Amino acid sequence: VVLPERQLIERIRRRAAPGTNRALARAIGDDCAVLNIPSGRQTLVTTDLCVEDVHFRRAWHPPRSVGHRCLTRGLSDIAAMGGEPVACFLSLGLPENLAQRWVDEFIDGLLRLAGSFRIPLAGGDIAGAPKITADIVVIGQIPAGRALLRSGARAGDRIYVTGTLGGSADRLRRLYAGEKLRAGAADRHFFPNARIETGRRLREEQIASAAIDLSDGLSVDLAHLCEESGVDAIVNAGALPVARGAGPEMALHGGEDYELLFTVRNGVRVPARIAGVPVSMIGEIVKASKGLKNKAGSRIRLCDHRGRLLPLKPAGWEHFSKI
Amino acid sequence: VVLPERQLIERIRRRAAPGTNRALARAIGDDCAVLNIPSGRQTLVTTDLCVEDVHFRRAWHPPRSVGHRCLTRGLSDIAAMGGEPVACFLSLGLPENLAQRWVDEFIDGLLRLAGSFRIPLAGGDIAGAPKITADIVVIGQIPAGRALLRSGARAGDRIYVTGTLGGSADRLRRLYAGEKLRAGAADRHFFPNARIETGRRLREEQIASAAIDLSDGLSVDLAHLCEESGVDAIVNAGALPVARGAGPEMALHGGEDYELLFTVRNGVRVPARIAGVPVSMIGEIVKASKGLKNKAGSRIRLCDHRGRLLPLKPAGWEHFSKI
Repeated sequence: VVLPERQLIERIRRRAAPGTNRALARAIGDDCAVLNIPSGRQTLVTTDLCVEDVHFRRAWHPPRSVGHRCLTRGLSDIAAMGGEPVACFLSLGLPENLAQRWVDEFIDGLLRLAGSFRIPLAGGDIAGAPKITADIVVIGQIPAGRALLRSGARAGDRIYVTGTLGGSADRLRRLYAGEKLRAGAADRHFFPNARIETGRRLREEQIASAAIDLSDGLSVDLAHLCEESGVDAIVNAGALPVARGAGPEMALHGGEDYELLFTVRNGVRVPARIAGVPVSMIGEIVKASKGLKNKAGSRIRLCDHRGRLLPLKPAGWEHFSKI
Repeated sequence: VVLPERQLIERIRRRAAPGTNRALARAIGDDCAVLNIPSGRQTLVTTDLCVEDVHFRRAWHPPRSVGHRCLTRGLSDIAAMGGEPVACFLSLGLPENLAQRWVDEFIDGLLRLAGSFRIPLAGGDIAGAPKITADIVVIGQIPAGRALLRSGARAGDRIYVTGTLGGSADRLRRLYAGEKLRAGAADRHFFPNARIETGRRLREEQIASAAIDLSDGLSVDLAHLCEESGVDAIVNAGALPVARGAGPEMALHGGEDYELLFTVRNGVRVPARIAGVPVSMIGEIVKASKGLKNKAGSRIRLCDHRGRLLPLKPAGWEHFSKI
């Protein structure tokens, strides 16, 4: 059974001891956290809600993996803007019959990842809830006016992605099929990496014209980027960096890879690896086709191995679906 | 039934159209919101998790009241630091069978209150959940180093509260007893006021040495302030500004009044009203009694009408109660 609210906050507070962090003036223990964002910088804010049986399952995901995955969702949003994370916050809804050990290991997974990016857990809230519910807030910073936006893509830009796609969906498929998977620390489904350093380099070296993180799946997230930029896209099926074990469908529609998708002006040189992460050109931004402009899902076409252009409907993982 | 995630976000985005707000560089529609916090200012962050049947009931609280109350919890934390709100964020977990109308009215209550403080709803997240779950994040700002902290109280300081206490608990008692209450716009249970302007004046005019908002109840929240300051307190029972309909027990232990409790150095003049809100002196900060220092709940004594000092145990509303 979980500790009473007050004791639980004290326990988390002791473990989240922030050490020396110049950005954090006041952490857990006051009405608000107080952060120092240097002048000339803008503040980034992202929130991500993770609900048991929607985003994870207790039977499939060890608590350390759940803590890691929750925080990764927020960090990945910061990465997609080219930002640097500053602090994280956690609002936690807990069922009464949950073991305190589950909470301890969840917090441990979250704090380990936070520590690897040198950000403190600076506050949050706790309440009872029928299912485990974790809302993660990540605050970041970025030089003023330099954020990578979804709206920066123009016709003629090349489309790139980091890493490989579909690996997380492949794991999910195997979990659904009843396989027992070991949640190894290197497994990108259980312990995905937020591409913070790659995002920062894309921004600093002015490589990317627009960016988004791949959380819902390539077909959905690229459609978002196209909507915000007012453009269409052509994806070259043969160029997709498909993860081992996954198929092209998973690479197109599978969620939770937390890779970055970015666009690059024609002529800008892109290294084969950025911050150690391989990047692949997968297609091209084209002018919005007038007739289709307002039909959701019609912005992307897939170029298959025979050179045919087929409409690609966004079919990634909508979290609102029944499971 | 609630709209699919994507449509729901678009719907909220249209209604949350931020207009001209200099603090908000990018709102809903990108991976993160981008905020401009002026140089020389610190950033305040607070998160508050509201869960159906823990913090509100669908049968008792109209959706506009729920939206208002959720945001008030965050605003009240900003008020307690003497800060100014900048933007709010909402992570929303929704049961599948919920009527879209409920969501619309909830958002309406939240946006009306946000509008009255001129802050935008700048982002958030949506997911399915078994109970309505709303995590509110409020970002604020404050001149660097000027935040009112819980840790600033010293022996000899006077203790003050704004407004009246116990009014919200009285409403809750009547709801539990089966009374049908009209959720009037002036009712402090259904539509509480965050004391933003009072908090700002307490800070600007250097009246308060420490502050906290009364969300869990006087006995609990004053104990928090005493812990953070390393002091004890004596509360004068006869001086409590008891709300109409409420009794002294409700004033001592009832939560959700969202008034401010603050301490003032002996000799500093305190106006009878601050930003239009009456304030009352209710007691005094005293040196921590050594023997009791680490016993939770022993920091406060109540001086009754016969001048006797009785220990006051924190007995406010712990949200972790059974649901």
